[in-house]
Amino acid sequence: MIANTPEPPYYAVIFTTLRTDNEEGYDETATKMETLAKQQEGYLGIESVRDEIGITVSYWKNVESIIKWKNNVEHTIAREKGRALWYKKYQLRICKVERDYGFFR
Amino acid sequence: MIANTPEPPYYAVIFTTLRTDNEEGYDETATKMETLAKQQEGYLGIESVRDEIGITVSYWKNVESIIKWKNNVEHTIAREKGRALWYKKYQLRICKVERDYGFFR
Repeated sequence: MIANTPEPPYYAVIFTTLRTDNEEGYDETATKMETLAKQQEGYLGIESVRDEIGITVSYWKNVESIIKWKNNVEHTIAREKGRALWYKKYQLRICKVERDYGFFR
Repeated sequence: MIANTPEPPYYAVIFTTLRTDNEEGYDETATKMETLAKQQEGYLGIESVRDEIGITVSYWKNVESIIKWKNNVEHTIAREKGRALWYKKYQLRICKVERDYGFFR
């Protein structure tokens, strides 16, 4: 779903991925990482879609909360598995959200 | 595909959308807007995926190029149609990309 984020400024991590054909353990780890991310200090929300590529955007209060999550032990192990097994290619971008606009009917 | 962006800093526009059931003219306009965006000054790349929600991230050299694209006449008309016909809800976030990391095998 579309994340309900607070007024800017806050941070976004845009994680764009191209998968390998190896599915082994992927869904389980992805679900576990999403659950774990939600428990972290400074976590604000997540948006995720996969088709030919995957785009997952997670939102955070500040850079410190992103670094803390990066250094989380289980997350570090998952990231190493990701590079070894699940991803052909990815790009991770750390961004400061300066403005946002919403629309709903 | 994953966009080949230059060294940060640069800008990202994260456009997260929830569609209506109205498909009329959507694909045509979406394709046209992507083609038109690519011709704009300061355009750096685009990543787009749709499943239950859609996430489109476009990358830009600076805020000025984003504002210029926002004010483009054809883009303005498409945006009005989007609100009238195609989107139930959306969130648009303008972000400064401060750091990025890539991986490929």
